[in-house]
Order: sequence, then C-alpha cells, then structure tokens
Amino acid sequence: MRTVRVGVIGTGMIGQTHIQRITGVVRGGQVVAVTDVDLARAEQVAGTLPAAAVVHKTGQDLIADNDVDAVLVTSWGATHEEYVLAAIAAGKRVFCEKPLAPTADGAMRIVEAEMAAGRRLIQVGFMRRYDAAYNALKNTLDAGEAGTPLLMHCAHRNPSAPPYGFTTDMIVSDSAVHEIDLVRWLFGEEIAAVRILHPRSSSRASEDLRDPLIVLLEMASGILIDVEVFVNAGYGYDIRAEVVGESGTLSLSHGGLATVTRDGQRGTPVPANWRERFDGAFDAEFTDWLRAVGTGTTTGPSSWDGYAAAVVTDRCLEALRTGDRVEVALPERPGFYAGRS
Amino acid sequence: MRTVRVGVIGTGMIGQTHIQRITGVVRGGQVVAVTDVDLARAEQVAGTLPAAAVVHKTGQDLIADNDVDAVLVTSWGATHEEYVLAAIAAGKRVFCEKPLAPTADGAMRIVEAEMAAGRRLIQVGFMRRYDAAYNALKNTLDAGEAGTPLLMHCAHRNPSAPPYGFTTDMIVSDSAVHEIDLVRWLFGEEIAAVRILHPRSSSRASEDLRDPLIVLLEMASGILIDVEVFVNAGYGYDIRAEVVGESGTLSLSHGGLATVTRDGQRGTPVPANWRERFDGAFDAEFTDWLRAVGTGTTTGPSSWDGYAAAVVTDRCLEALRTGDRVEVALPERPGFYAGRS
Amino acid sequence: MRTVRVGVIGTGMIGQTHIQRITGVVRGGQVVAVTDVDLARAEQVAGTLPAAAVVHKTGQDLIADNDVDAVLVTSWGATHEEYVLAAIAAGKRVFCEKPLAPTADGAMRIVEAEMAAGRRLIQVGFMRRYDAAYNALKNTLDAGEAGTPLLMHCAHRNPSAPPYGFTTDMIVSDSAVHEIDLVRWLFGEEIAAVRILHPRSSSRASEDLRDPLIVLLEMASGILIDVEVFVNAGYGYDIRAEVVGESGTLSLSHGGLATVTRDGQRGTPVPANWRERFDGAFDAEFTDWLRAVGTGTTTGPSSWDGYAAAVVTDRCLEALRTGDRVEVALPERPGFYAGRS
Amino acid sequence: MRTVRVGVIGTGMIGQTHIQRITGVVRGGQVVAVTDVDLARAEQVAGTLPAAAVVHKTGQDLIADNDVDAVLVTSWGATHEEYVLAAIAAGKRVFCEKPLAPTADGAMRIVEAEMAAGRRLIQVGFMRRYDAAYNALKNTLDAGEAGTPLLMHCAHRNPSAPPYGFTTDMIVSDSAVHEIDLVRWLFGEEIAAVRILHPRSSSRASEDLRDPLIVLLEMASGILIDVEVFVNAGYGYDIRAEVVGESGTLSLSHGGLATVTRDGQRGTPVPANWRERFDGAFDAEFTDWLRAVGTGTTTGPSSWDGYAAAVVTDRCLEALRTGDRVEVALPERPGFYAGRS
Repeated sequence: MRTVRVGVIGTGMIGQTHIQRITGVVRGGQVVAVTDVDLARAEQVAGTLPAAAVVHKTGQDLIADNDVDAVLVTSWGATHEEYVLAAIAAGKRVFCEKPLAPTADGAMRIVEAEMAAGRRLIQVGFMRRYDAAYNALKNTLDAGEAGTPLLMHCAHRNPSAPPYGFTTDMIVSDSAVHEIDLVRWLFGEEIAAVRILHPRSSSRASEDLRDPLIVLLEMASGILIDVEVFVNAGYGYDIRAEVVGESGTLSLSHGGLATVTRDGQRGTPVPANWRERFDGAFDAEFTDWLRAVGTGTTTGPSSWDGYAAAVVTDRCLEALRTGDRVEVALPERPGFYAGRS
Repeated sequence: MRTVRVGVIGTGMIGQTHIQRITGVVRGGQVVAVTDVDLARAEQVAGTLPAAAVVHKTGQDLIADNDVDAVLVTSWGATHEEYVLAAIAAGKRVFCEKPLAPTADGAMRIVEAEMAAGRRLIQVGFMRRYDAAYNALKNTLDAGEAGTPLLMHCAHRNPSAPPYGFTTDMIVSDSAVHEIDLVRWLFGEEIAAVRILHPRSSSRASEDLRDPLIVLLEMASGILIDVEVFVNAGYGYDIRAEVVGESGTLSLSHGGLATVTRDGQRGTPVPANWRERFDGAFDAEFTDWLRAVGTGTTTGPSSWDGYAAAVVTDRCLEALRTGDRVEVALPERPGFYAGRS
Repeated sequence: MRTVRVGVIGTGMIGQTHIQRITGVVRGGQVVAVTDVDLARAEQVAGTLPAAAVVHKTGQDLIADNDVDAVLVTSWGATHEEYVLAAIAAGKRVFCEKPLAPTADGAMRIVEAEMAAGRRLIQVGFMRRYDAAYNALKNTLDAGEAGTPLLMHCAHRNPSAPPYGFTTDMIVSDSAVHEIDLVRWLFGEEIAAVRILHPRSSSRASEDLRDPLIVLLEMASGILIDVEVFVNAGYGYDIRAEVVGESGTLSLSHGGLATVTRDGQRGTPVPANWRERFDGAFDAEFTDWLRAVGTGTTTGPSSWDGYAAAVVTDRCLEALRTGDRVEVALPERPGFYAGRS
Repeated sequence: MRTVRVGVIGTGMIGQTHIQRITGVVRGGQVVAVTDVDLARAEQVAGTLPAAAVVHKTGQDLIADNDVDAVLVTSWGATHEEYVLAAIAAGKRVFCEKPLAPTADGAMRIVEAEMAAGRRLIQVGFMRRYDAAYNALKNTLDAGEAGTPLLMHCAHRNPSAPPYGFTTDMIVSDSAVHEIDLVRWLFGEEIAAVRILHPRSSSRASEDLRDPLIVLLEMASGILIDVEVFVNAGYGYDIRAEVVGESGTLSLSHGGLATVTRDGQRGTPVPANWRERFDGAFDAEFTDWLRAVGTGTTTGPSSWDGYAAAVVTDRCLEALRTGDRVEVALPERPGFYAGRS
C-alpha cells in the first residue's frame, strides 16, 4: 500500500478539518497540493502543513498536477460537479464532501461519467456509515435480532442553527440528508416516497425558520421512517435512532463515557456538537478511503448514493412546499453500482 | 370519609380485576352489589366476595338499590351509555371504564345529562393519568424543565393481539385511545387534527390487520405527537414517551427494577403485559375515586374527557379509512368542565 | 379477614408516619389507642385521627386495653424490650420498629418469651424486605440467573446526617443495620464475621464523625459483602446493591421515573431521602402485617432476625473500636424460627 | 515530526498485536527490525510486514542496530530489565510492556539508569491511562464535580482465566496491577497500604485458584479503593469504577453501542474480552508514544510508575500470603519524575 498524495480543493473550515485528519491523525495519505477560491487562505493553510505543498491557482490545475494521486473536494457545494467531472476525466480518485452535486441532474452526470470511465472513482462524504454505533445497529439488524424491520424512529438534533442564512430548506438538504443516506445504507433499499410534517416551531429559531420538522421516509419495502430534525434543540447534539422489527427493537445507546451523580441527579453528558459525536466516524471514513485508494480501489458511499440522496432531497423540498406525500421516482440502480454501498 | 358502597355492572375480566382491587387492595370502598349479562357469572363473583353482596337481575335494578352509593360500569362498551345515564338520573356517582360511550353522540348525551344534574358525577377510566412515571413527566414539563413543548414521540406496544376478532379499527379505539386522552391531559389542550400512517405490516399480525400504525395527533397549539401503536410487538409491553421542548426533552425512563448481567449482556426486564405495567396506576385511580366519592365529590377524567376521546377516535377512524389528515371539530369546552381534568 | 385494631406506643415522627399509613393508605387496620412519653403529643395525634382513639397514660395500659388487638411499638429504642415482652405476656401481636431491643441480651429475652408463648407474635420493622427492587433482585438470584453468589457490593448513602448527636457508632447501628438484616434475608444464611474499614473522612461530616465507613460482612458460606455507608453523601439518598455470582451479576437498577435531557446532560433523579425511596416498601410492610394479623398469624422479619441483627451490630461496634476482623458467634437458629424469614 | 523506526524484541502474541498497530493502524512509526527467542517466529513475523525488516539474532543486536530509533520490548517479562537497561545504555527510547521488571529491585535499577542518563527514555505499557472513559472520569474528577475524593469501588472481571498455569498470585500481578497503576494516575498520589480479602471462590476457577479476590488499596491521603478482581466472571469482560467524593460520585458508564430489546428484555452488550474493551486505548497509547519519540521526547507512564507498581504488587503478594494489612514503603519520588505521570 503506497501513501496517497492528496490534493485538496477548498480550504475552508471543513477542508482544514480533513487536512488535519490526513496529516495528523489517520494513516495512508499526505497533502501535496491545495487550492481555494480565496488563494490567500490556501497559502496560509499550505504554510501549516508538515511538508511542503503546492498551492494551485484553480481546482483544474490541481487536478492536472501529476503529483496529485487523488482529489479531496471540499469547496462550495455548487462547484462540486465541475471538479468531480474533471477528476474523472483525469482518471483520478475523488473524495467529495456532500452534496455530490447541488442538483440531481448534476449528480446523474457524475454517475454517467464514472460509468463511462468503467470503474468506481468517487466516494461521497456520508460519514455516518462509518460510525461505530450505527454499525453496531446494522450488525444486530442484519443478524436478525429484531426480525424483519417495519419502521424506524430517528431524531437529529443540533444545539443551534447559524443565526443568519440558515433556511428551512437547509434543514432538509444539510441535516436530514444524513438520514436519507443512512436509511438507504441501513436497509439496503431505496426510498419510495417522502412527506414533511410541521410540529410547532421553536421560538428560538429565527423568524422564518420552520424548526423542528418531521421528515417521513417510506422505503420500497414499506418500512416507514420518521425523522425529527431540530436544528435549534438547545441542549446539545443528539442523534437518536430506533429500528422496530417484528420481534424486537434496536436502538443507538445513549453513550456518554462517565456518569456523574450530584445535586440529586445521575447524569451522562450529551455531545456538544457533531464534531464530538462523529469524530471517530470521520477518522474511520478517511482511513478507509486512503486504504482503498492506496490499493487502487474505491469503496464506500458511491456516486449512485450521492445521486439518490440528491433525488430524495429534491422530493423532500417539494414535499416541504406542497405539504403532500411525494413519490420518489428513481431509475433502476445500474448493475455497475450493484452491491457496492 | 365514609366507606363507599359500590355496585358493579359487568363482572367479566376487567370487572373482576376492579372488584379485587376494591375489596383487597385499596382503601375506601366495599362491593355491595353486582350484576352481569351472564347472571351465573355474577352469582359466582358475588360468592368470592369477603362480605355478602346482592346480585341484581339488571343494571337498572342495581342502580336503583338504595344500598348502592356509587356504580362501577365495566359491562360491554355498547351498554355504557344506558347505565351511566340511569346513574345520573338516580344522582349516583359513576366510575365508567372506557369508552364512556361507543359513539361521540352518546358521550355528548352523558355530558349534557351531567351538566343538567349540576355537578360532576362521572369519572372515566383513563388510568394512565394516575401512572407515577407519566406524572413525573408532567411535573417536569409543568416545571418548565424542557421549555415550551413542540412535539412528542410515543410508542404503545403490546406483545400480541388476540388471535381472532381484533381489527385495525380497534388498534385506534382500544389502544391509541389511551394516548389520545393522555396528550390532552399532559398538554392541557384539545386535539385539532389527526392522521394515520402505515408502516410495513408485521407478518405476525393476522391477515387483515394493519399493524403497526403511526397515529399523528396535532394539538390546538401546534404540538405534533406521533404515536407508534403496535399490538403484535412480540417482545413485551412497552410504553415509551418523549416530549421535545424548546430547551430539552423529557422521557419516560426505562424502568426495570433489577439489572441482570450475564451471557455477554447487561439487561433489564420489559413488562410482560399492561397489568404489570399499570397495576400501580389502577390502584391509584381507584384510591382516588373512592376518596373523592367518600367525601362527596368526583374528580379525575370527566365526561368531557370521555366525549373528547370519542370524537377524536371517530376522526382517527375516518383518517384510517381515507388516508387523509382529518380536522377535529370539538365544541368549546363548557365552563362546567373548566380546569377539571 | 377482620380489621385489626391497633394501639400505638410512641407518637413521635416515625409513629405518626405509621399511623398515617394505617389510617390513610393501606387496608386492614384502624388506630384505636395511642400513648407517648409526652402525653400532650399523644393527645394531639389522637385528635387528628379519623375515628376516636383512646389515649392511654402508659404503654402497659395500652397493651392491657381489650379493644387493642395488636400493638405498634415506635417509642424510643431503649423502651422496646419492655413493651414487646408485655405484649407477648398479654398474647398480643406486635409490630416493633428496629431495634427489637438495644442489646442482644434484650433481644434474646424476647426470642425466649415468644418461643415460650408457642407462636410467632412479633414482626420487626426491617422494611427493605418489602421493597420491590430488592425483591426483584432476590427473585432473580433465587432463579439462579447469576449462579452461586460469591460476593456483593452495597452502598447506603444519605444526603446528610443530623448536625448534632449523630455518632460513628450510629452509622453502624442505625444505617448499616439495614444491610445487616438484608443480606441475611437475601442469602438465607447467617453472618459469620465482620470488619470495618475507614476511607478518608468527609470534611462535611461533623468533627468527630468517621464518615464514610466500609462495613465488611462475611456470610457463613463465605459470601463477602462490602457496604459503603456514607451518611453525608450530599447529593441524595442512594441505595445501591450488586450481587456477583459465578455466572453473572444482579443489581438494583437506577430507578428514576422521568429522564430529563437539558443543558448538555441526560439525567434521572436520585431520591431525596429514605421516605421517597422506601415509601412503597413501608406500605407493603404494613399491608402485609395487617393482613397477617387480621387472619391470625404473624410473618415477616422475626424476633430471631431482630436478635441476629443485634448480635451482628454489637460485633460491628467491636470491630469499629478494635479495627480487627471480629467473628460472630450466634447460637444455632431454633427450629421455631426455621424457614420463617 | 519524523517517522520512528522501531525495533521489536519479542514477536509473540502481544508483540504481533503491537506490530500490527504500528504498521497498520496508528501514524508515526514503522517496524524496521525484529527479534525473538524463537527466531523462526521472528522471521515469520518479519515476512508479514509491509516493508522489509531486519531479523536480529538477539535483542542486544537489535538495540545496537543504527537503523533502530526506538525499541519496543514485548518479550517474556523476566527479560525486560536486561533489554531496557541496554537500550538506556545505547541512548534509545523504549516502550516496555508491563512489567517494567519482574522485581522491584530490577525496576529500581532501571529508574537509576534512566536518571543517570539524564532524560526520560522509558514508557511503560499501562494503557488504561489512554482509555477515553477513564480520561472522562479523571477530567470530571479534576474539575471537582464530585468534590474531594474519599473512596473508590472498582471491578475487574475477565470471562475466564487460562485453564492451566494461572495462579492466584497472577490475579494480583497480571490483573490487579492495572488498577494499582490506574489509581496512582487518577489521584496523583502513592499507595500507602494494601490488603487482600477473600470472598467465596468460584467453583469455575481451577482447584487451587482463589478467585475472586478483593484488593484493598489505601492512598497516601486516605482514599480507600476496593478492587474486585474476578478472572472467571464468566459473562464477559467488565471493567467498572466509581469514585465517591464529598459531594457526588463519578463512574464509568456502561458503554455498549446498540441496545437490543427482545424476549422481554432491554439489553446492551458487555465486551467479550480486553482487546475489544481497550483497543482504542492501545491505539491512543502508541499514537502518543510515537508522536513523543518522533519529536524527541518521552511522556506517558514512566519507569517510576513501573517501579511503584512493582513495589505495590510485591506488598499485595505479601498481603495475599499473610492476610494482613501491609504498608507500602516507597522512597520519595525523585524530582526527576515530578509532574511527569
């Protein structure tokens, strides 16, 4: 297994986090090139690296760099499609943060380009698939410990949304999209219909934000998932899930490493934010990507998964506008992606 | 406080359970008269009582008996209205098992008769309001520990439904009706709309049963409650509830008195059935009823609560048939019942 | 079953609590006579009863009262022996709060008097045997779910000791005595040796108090129990127990009816005091006593249990003084008390 | 930070595990040389490495190899002292699995040699200091959340001991030694006295094994720790700890990622073995060692910690033989090691 020379397009907060992970935490990669729409920021980030890295003027230049084996796309979502297509054209492997593309059409163009290239090159950043607790849940599910799954309850709670610029649409496209991908992976089937329900809105949410929402997802087999998405939950970052099967239920345990008993109460901590909760999942995700790329393959969430998430997200946004149940019409999954998620 | 002389109409299983509770567990009452559509059964039950009890030919005779202070109606649901109205006419206090009446119209006739009588005489058997855990939940809610409530998740799981005769309608009218009353009590407001969702049905349910269901209840203030009702959950009797407020969440704890660690697992027991789970609530309910009646009053769930439950249940059945969201049109709550639930 | 007419000797705090329990909570008894070293207090308590009660000048008068079927002894501990012996002489049944007698010799005199009377008349107030959680623990133990028991960890924590007059000896004789009785009941065998260990003392304890202590109890079969007794634990009233067997462990669950998640923490309440924790056990204890007495028997913790507790307590006090392991020499349990605890 | 070239002395099971960790999991090192008392095994292990590694005939040869920056000692315990002293003489950094030396005298010789060398070169393999849960416990303790610590309860349970060759002494020297080091680290002070108690022995233990034991550790400040060590606990690998302070308690949470509710029980898994439980701690330990060595330092558990553990273990073995409380006479900690554990 050789060390993967990674070029990073987008050195904002998430890009920097991933760079730090590749250079200081997980094995198998080194960052050899960076670029950003803000070149000064790219220069600054390059200056913090343990080894010299080239700063490219554009993402296209970085992709063309012969010293770059694989590309990490962490730029603004609207630019993802362009960079991913260019990397495919260059025959380079890509880790693309979600969304794969801001539209389903864009994601489909990536799917088609990758299929035309004849081999998987793209991994999409759905990191929950690498979380130890979700994997324990999936293992017990696959082992039949709850029997055939019938429904699932999820909650996705953030302590607070950014005070400006966060819209109700983003509760779906930025938050619920994690569960959209997760249930496809967990149950191994596609989402067939969606609906959005509106509980009373929190007065802590900004004026025009409908928060929380209940996102309902119906799988092809009839499994019904209700997802409470609450981006101003106040008390912490809390990710809950319970699968109800014909003979039992499976749920994420509450976590919390130390229990403190004081002042009349026995308590365990709730994570403060998504970094604390999913730090290990990000590590596992990049370890896996670099290991795969270092041995000449790509595994993990695929372009097809990115495409499916984009389609379902679109239908959820339609459901948000209309209040209706909206069916999801997804083309048949190509054999190319069979058994690969 | 005088001992309440109770006459019991209906000596089937639930009637016998309540008789046993009054004669052997809680304070304040004695059973002095019984009747049943099956007189032989009434005779037999009378024979097991610690003190002699009159066996009446009809419920009307029992109600007319001067030695009967108060009437416990545990006969078949279709007969409740007749007996409750007769008791009101006789000026006697009544504990009526749910449903108060099988139709909303019938329940309204009772409400009107009671109002005409000028004082509360009826308590309806919604025992969850007496459960210690639900009361702890309500106390923390009322103390503001979670902030303004926005939504609530409930699960109502039975190990198995009777093999014959249990219909999908009964999942609503017999099972979900408990949550219908509960949320009105918990939040102190009426239900404004309902909807029913269908997860994949369990293969363990009988052929024509849609089980589980998700019952959605919208309160007047916008609080949205999702209730998973699953009468063939298999593993035990499990009642779950979590209220999500603007600053935190409140949930029923898992219970289970002893924790057993063996064979690679740390486990706590789930109740086997509703008797085990709510035994203490039934005790508290009858203690409260007998104490109130013994001091010349009636408190607890009222005819209005029975009426509201009947109306909401009807709308849920309509929602079950149509698949639509159905609004609940409830007349304004009479001042007579103000602040009384 | 007839209603038991109870005479109460000692109308202090604990006496009043039990009177309230008999008159207002559990079934089967009524308080017909009271007395107290402070007659004014006895008069006052009599005045609060629902039915008239005679106020006797002395405990001996009360015991002699023909309208008194059974005697509740809740006077100062030093007087217990005298009243219990008098009740035995009068052939009346007794519920005696712990201690049965302040010395082992005194307790033995009661054992001998009861045996001479030829039938059990005494129940001693070890209420933990009636606690639902301890009973669940015992049931799982007896069902063999942990295999043969080898050792046990206990903690007995009070929020705070009275600021004056509470001595280190009392940590043993008033607090640890509950575990001393409990383990005899739980394992069905006698305590063979004891030892006391001294952790660092809390600065919150009064100057001359050694608090907490670790009380070590060795059962006849070799089971070793460590009991942390901490009367100034500060945070609440917390009773913990874990039995470790050859194939698993059994422990009291944490309890707490409602779980509150807020401010970064998921918490369940700890009881504030022993009343809150053991209220149900006291109810069950008196229900059981009155039911037994009403049907002409006495069950529950016996004089022998009171005697054994007194002997073990004495040895613990010796161990406290000497720092040594002290063996417990208990005479063989009379056949009279066989299989009766 | 440069990559650390590691030479491994001892390629048995634990050596192979650490080699796999360095070559395939954590960052910062590569294995460049190996040796073993069984040279064939060393050859075989070398053959599995991703890059070529020299196989040395002896540990001394390996230490002398100029391409070896740092030495990992995972040979048989009796040989540790010789290799560690040689590495110190060669000025090379060492990670030495516990025990640092099989006798306290041997450990002291290492301490003296390291002090003579003038800088820390040795890290001892007490991996619990790197466990996330213990660190959360220590953080809450140091933050004062429980107030001044007074006592601690620990349990250290293995599913089963090896059927042959495992002695009662090894319950102390191989198992309890982890808690011996842990409490020194947790409370930042030395152990002043020890004692061993004997619960009833498990019939599942081999004939001459006294299992479980209670090991009592008294810290210099008076904090008393009771450690249940049970190497045939049967049900799983379970590590428990609760610190009791003046105002609250802190405990390891129960862990278990997924909760399964089925067959009347809600359960979470217990780890199957120490690898599953402490895998993350081993990763963190080696990450830390390699990072320190790569930047020219050594941190973590020191020779002094290894020496102190050896002295306390010796006193525990004496306590095991005599049944007495045995004081621990440790020389004053040299300034050289101040503030370094």
